Amino acid sequence: MTTAGQVWDLLRAQVAPRGMVEVPLGEACGRTLRTPVRAAEDMPAFDRSAVDGFAIPGGEGSSSFLVAGELRAGDPEQAAIAHGCAYHIVTGAAVPKGAEVVMLEDAKEEDDRVSFLRRGKDNIRRRGEDARAGDVMVPAGAGLTEGCVALLASIGCTHPCVTRTITACHIATGNEIVDPSIQPRPGQIRDANSALVQAWAQSRRISLSQQRLGEDEAALRDSLRADCDVLLISGGASVGRHDFTGAALREAGFEILVTKIDARPGKPLIVGRRGDQWAFGLPGNPLSHFVCLHVFVAAGIAAMEGAAEAPTLLSGKISTPIAGNPRETWWPAREELPGLCPLRWKSSGDLTSLAAANALIRVPVSGLAAGGVAEFIRTA
Amino acid sequence: MTTAGQVWDLLRAQVAPRGMVEVPLGEACGRTLRTPVRAAEDMPAFDRSAVDGFAIPGGEGSSSFLVAGELRAGDPEQAAIAHGCAYHIVTGAAVPKGAEVVMLEDAKEEDDRVSFLRRGKDNIRRRGEDARAGDVMVPAGAGLTEGCVALLASIGCTHPCVTRTITACHIATGNEIVDPSIQPRPGQIRDANSALVQAWAQSRRISLSQQRLGEDEAALRDSLRADCDVLLISGGASVGRHDFTGAALREAGFEILVTKIDARPGKPLIVGRRGDQWAFGLPGNPLSHFVCLHVFVAAGIAAMEGAAEAPTLLSGKISTPIAGNPRETWWPAREELPGLCPLRWKSSGDLTSLAAANALIRVPVSGLAAGGVAEFIRTA
Repeated sequence: MTTAGQVWDLLRAQVAPRGMVEVPLGEACGRTLRTPVRAAEDMPAFDRSAVDGFAIPGGEGSSSFLVAGELRAGDPEQAAIAHGCAYHIVTGAAVPKGAEVVMLEDAKEEDDRVSFLRRGKDNIRRRGEDARAGDVMVPAGAGLTEGCVALLASIGCTHPCVTRTITACHIATGNEIVDPSIQPRPGQIRDANSALVQAWAQSRRISLSQQRLGEDEAALRDSLRADCDVLLISGGASVGRHDFTGAALREAGFEILVTKIDARPGKPLIVGRRGDQWAFGLPGNPLSHFVCLHVFVAAGIAAMEGAAEAPTLLSGKISTPIAGNPRETWWPAREELPGLCPLRWKSSGDLTSLAAANALIRVPVSGLAAGGVAEFIRTA
Repeated sequence: MTTAGQVWDLLRAQVAPRGMVEVPLGEACGRTLRTPVRAAEDMPAFDRSAVDGFAIPGGEGSSSFLVAGELRAGDPEQAAIAHGCAYHIVTGAAVPKGAEVVMLEDAKEEDDRVSFLRRGKDNIRRRGEDARAGDVMVPAGAGLTEGCVALLASIGCTHPCVTRTITACHIATGNEIVDPSIQPRPGQIRDANSALVQAWAQSRRISLSQQRLGEDEAALRDSLRADCDVLLISGGASVGRHDFTGAALREAGFEILVTKIDARPGKPLIVGRRGDQWAFGLPGNPLSHFVCLHVFVAAGIAAMEGAAEAPTLLSGKISTPIAGNPRETWWPAREELPGLCPLRWKSSGDLTSLAAANALIRVPVSGLAAGGVAEFIRTA
């Protein structure tokens, strides 16, 4: 049996990052940057006023100035201001060489003259004070947040180089599953895994195709020919006689690297590889699915994305104790900073905790005491 | 001047939730549920095997059983098993009345008979052990996560009732801003706010239209006629002479409820209301934008969504001290559990921290000591 850490090591070592593509900034949020973005020029690129007010010759001792004009944002940079003169200036406007800026709130305007109640505050954002031309602004491997997108726009990077869209194919197997819109007959259950995988892929911008196959071995074999980055096969990963995922994967040319993990739920996880293509055989119980997607498949996807780190193991204090178990447990929990609240969870088929879960606590074999610090993964 | 808390109270009290709509489950993730979803039946709906193994008559003392057939997942529920008989059973299959289930790993099969190394473990998930028919599974106001979607599928809720898509109109003003693809002339800067608002709206599934208007007052007045839930106007919210947002909003029939907030960056925030429609005048500096979007506009959107709570104020320990300031400060930070790392930040025009920021720390006027606990908002 393979531990969670061994599965991550395996994926980190063997999964190759996918190709790169330039995308317009409007499609970049949520994607992984692949080449570092540097500042092309100093930031700010010129001395800018940080306030609305007046620009006057720097350090000039007069008590009153002639208002000679205005400096607007977007106007080209002006020469030095003449002795005794002041210009209206707005936030963001270029500050003339050697000028001082006084806030509007500190000014008293009368007819065409202005005097000041207070002076000497630095109301100028100097060229290069935030960053210098050539500085790395966003490193390769970064996940592009909204803030990153704004930063890229501000430095003129309108087509960042990111990982191409990852493609996945999901195959739900099992005779007992029916479409969620259908009232199950006795012995049947609704297919929750397809909806889960669909939502999971959507939020990661994975391009997904899905099939529901029952236990048709021929159809499964056919589906395993799919040309995609990741194959996800739901159900059929346990030891029973109807469990044919592993055999079918082997037959389809996959090398099986993991057949069982030393963790629950999700123990009968299968991980296979065929060249650059990866397959995950996910145990049919929806909670096992949820755990395997977040703990293992996500790590594989992150490696394909060329992302800086995955999974992100956080640490937090748990509010109630969790008993030990012969296997490491990934326990559904609600992160409510500063702590983590373990949720009621009866079995790996029990989905009710997923209404509130936004985290999975990694519970060691020895269990966790109340107030103890635990590792966890964020799931929402 | 209005405090952040007063702005939130105002929005909570006055912003009306928008209409509801039923959406297919495949489009439900990330949306806000408006009517509670209850279990239509017990969960599980029948006694199910939790393992692959054998079903035998419960408590029967024999040491060896005749393998009489198999019970597959999806088969209808069977009558009680005859004395001396065993059935192969797979995970998820219905357990016959009164039967006991033994794991495959604890069984020894020989020809058509089976004996057991171990018995007595409870390998059955009982009808209703997770939830009872009528229990609320996901409450109104919940944000639908991937886990919620799986849960809804499992109980047959294929068209949950959620808030209709919120519509927003973003107008970027200012003569100094140019498209990010253009090399700014001296005095000009690239428009980062439009890219920020676009990414921000995308990740919240807000339907957005955008315009860049320069300082054309007539065009702004025209744009303020837009029929949308939220108007966002970038720039022009300071005290300067080119700042006409407030006046234009008033003229367009908006009641101005906030003209300035006692917080930075973002002090010159304008909040206005025209019937059910809300307008936010956002100061032009991109960091002010980032803060106002996450701290204030998000709270308004949450109220429109009918979401349970907003903003979500978390608390965490900060790693380095932050000096006090006459105004409450929302400081860009990196949440790195168990702590928060404040990022370098020179001015409200300094966007460089946004490459790493995933949180905004609420710094009180008195500042924060290293190791102190601070409130914060998550931004990514």
